[in-house]
Amino acid sequence: MTDFPIFDPPERLLMGPGPSNIHPRVYAALSAPVVGHLDPVFLAVMEEAKALLRATFQTRNELTIAISGTGSAGMETCFVNAVEPGDRVLVCINGVFGMRMREVATRCGAEVDIIEAEWGTAIPTESVAEALSAAEYKVVAVVHAETSTGVLQPLEQISRLVHDHGALFLVDAVTSLGGVELDVDGLEIDLCYSGTQKCLSCPPGLSPVTFSTRAMERLAARQTAVQSWYLDLSLISQYWGESRVYHHTAPISMNYALREALRLVSEEGLEARWSRHLRNQQALVRGLEALGLSLVVDESIRLPALTTVRIPQGIDDANVRGTLLQRFGIEIGGGLGAFQGKAWRVGLMGSTSTERNVTTFLAALQATLAEQGYKGGGAVEAALSA
Amino acid sequence: MTDFPIFDPPERLLMGPGPSNIHPRVYAALSAPVVGHLDPVFLAVMEEAKALLRATFQTRNELTIAISGTGSAGMETCFVNAVEPGDRVLVCINGVFGMRMREVATRCGAEVDIIEAEWGTAIPTESVAEALSAAEYKVVAVVHAETSTGVLQPLEQISRLVHDHGALFLVDAVTSLGGVELDVDGLEIDLCYSGTQKCLSCPPGLSPVTFSTRAMERLAARQTAVQSWYLDLSLISQYWGESRVYHHTAPISMNYALREALRLVSEEGLEARWSRHLRNQQALVRGLEALGLSLVVDESIRLPALTTVRIPQGIDDANVRGTLLQRFGIEIGGGLGAFQGKAWRVGLMGSTSTERNVTTFLAALQATLAEQGYKGGGAVEAALSA
Repeated sequence: MTDFPIFDPPERLLMGPGPSNIHPRVYAALSAPVVGHLDPVFLAVMEEAKALLRATFQTRNELTIAISGTGSAGMETCFVNAVEPGDRVLVCINGVFGMRMREVATRCGAEVDIIEAEWGTAIPTESVAEALSAAEYKVVAVVHAETSTGVLQPLEQISRLVHDHGALFLVDAVTSLGGVELDVDGLEIDLCYSGTQKCLSCPPGLSPVTFSTRAMERLAARQTAVQSWYLDLSLISQYWGESRVYHHTAPISMNYALREALRLVSEEGLEARWSRHLRNQQALVRGLEALGLSLVVDESIRLPALTTVRIPQGIDDANVRGTLLQRFGIEIGGGLGAFQGKAWRVGLMGSTSTERNVTTFLAALQATLAEQGYKGGGAVEAALSA
Repeated sequence: MTDFPIFDPPERLLMGPGPSNIHPRVYAALSAPVVGHLDPVFLAVMEEAKALLRATFQTRNELTIAISGTGSAGMETCFVNAVEPGDRVLVCINGVFGMRMREVATRCGAEVDIIEAEWGTAIPTESVAEALSAAEYKVVAVVHAETSTGVLQPLEQISRLVHDHGALFLVDAVTSLGGVELDVDGLEIDLCYSGTQKCLSCPPGLSPVTFSTRAMERLAARQTAVQSWYLDLSLISQYWGESRVYHHTAPISMNYALREALRLVSEEGLEARWSRHLRNQQALVRGLEALGLSLVVDESIRLPALTTVRIPQGIDDANVRGTLLQRFGIEIGGGLGAFQGKAWRVGLMGSTSTERNVTTFLAALQATLAEQGYKGGGAVEAALSA
């Protein structure tokens, strides 16, 4: 009953909403010898990861670290530390992850108001301005890159409004960090969280976060204890800071992997990486449009790392995704929430974002759709036509 | 500034309070190709991990899974799900992790009463009986293996008292699972959490947990939402159950590693594994006693996986641990809390528990102590004398 064979997973091409494909150097780091969590060797890894994360987030924030959980733990870390029971919080919702932020904020005892925009569109700045003129908020939360819709939210004007209002600006950067410009200091983002398995191309399991001085001051002035001991930054920051006070045993191997993934980001250079993500998405889009498929998100707010494609009428969603996975070894994502059965999510994140992967996918998709009687072709040629 | 060299950590002999040394097969699993978190291949990994965890916990509990965080996240998972604001909780404290349980329970809004026993001793059954006769509790929490002191808490009588009282029995098994007998069903434990980096010899990053039917009924009858969205079992159980509803992206690579670590446990057999832990500790103890060192914990309640040794007068704690680490590549743990500067913690957990590691350590310790003028010898010979 408990006798299972040796594990030998297939090599997938990961073109879903994450995880993305992992560079061999990151796999090597992942399986490097484990040392203790207070070993000077590991403390150096933590310092290096902090420096590399600061460069990637484009911030000088002292508290820029990896939380020992996935991106959703990073979300919860931001809310439990920033919010006290009774605080008013404004959450902008245009997809699943905005909805999740509302849920998490509510469980922190916040009085949550929301702004909603149609899925596949961005939050209009005017809606934020209107909400901020009608009530006083401690925190305003926005998703930079909605993984459920593929929308890239413009942040600059919203940030100005939030700070004029005196609130903290909380941003979900799970699917933007390392794949699209994210200037934490320039945008004056106060609390920001991400995940490792998207544009950083590291396995899932950690959540990079960064907190501004304003956010830390708010934390220091709290009247109540943070409801989560595990995610309490006043404790975690002592372990990641100079005093090295034991809090929990950090996921050693995952931190090794993150450090290596961030070194790859640093070597490539942020701007080159953003350009690569955009260039390969543009090739993907040319191919999809040649096939006659339509995209959910307008080009002006399209997230380079994740493209949402409408499923054509008469095409069997599960069958297409199943064929791509089982026959071609390619994972793409189904629609989430309101988009279930209506859209595919095609990720080109981190190491996955290459021209070869774009053409591999388009060829497989074209063949799979043809089997279902769909007329359309020339996808690979269009992708390569630029 | 963000330019760091390739990472090449030393191969430590990990004889502290965890992490322990990792088997090559677990490293290989850790760096196996990542697949998606909803890929049938990964869903099979989850099912296999559940079955292997059930065997290791000795339980039939349906909800026996790995939480996506370290052991402390497992602790928090148990409390946030079992406790509602205003619930009375009894926490038994005889070391750091009992103190942590009190803190976590308090942050859940529980009315917490405590029973304290001297560090290095067990919680007396009579104290629990007395407390239970004086007030009504929803949850009684005990540490099975106190990693800060090396005490193995007898659970049988306490369990009977707790269930006669109608409370849920919550047990910290971070340093016992896989290293010492732990019969979750036989002991009628309702909520139990562990860590991967101790006697399971997997890297840190996941927390195996198991919940009885009684605990799940309590959860279903809650009047209030679980304060943590990330650790809400009513949501997590849907992802780990048949419906596979997306909750968060599981740490894929760490789950691969856990599955392989549990296969190693299964291949060795639980009883053989417990015997090995005990046998090697007995050799260690013979060696330490030959050196004239004294142990903190009485043999009758000594945790096989972790031995606490009093630091002799005149010996420099930091110097000894530093020499062991830097010259011999051996990590042992310093004292925690009340034992800081007073005791060493020597772990023989999982793969680390071998006769060769015992003699390697004793030889290094004897030499290191001799350098500080300590008289005493014959440690290795004594260890091998049985």
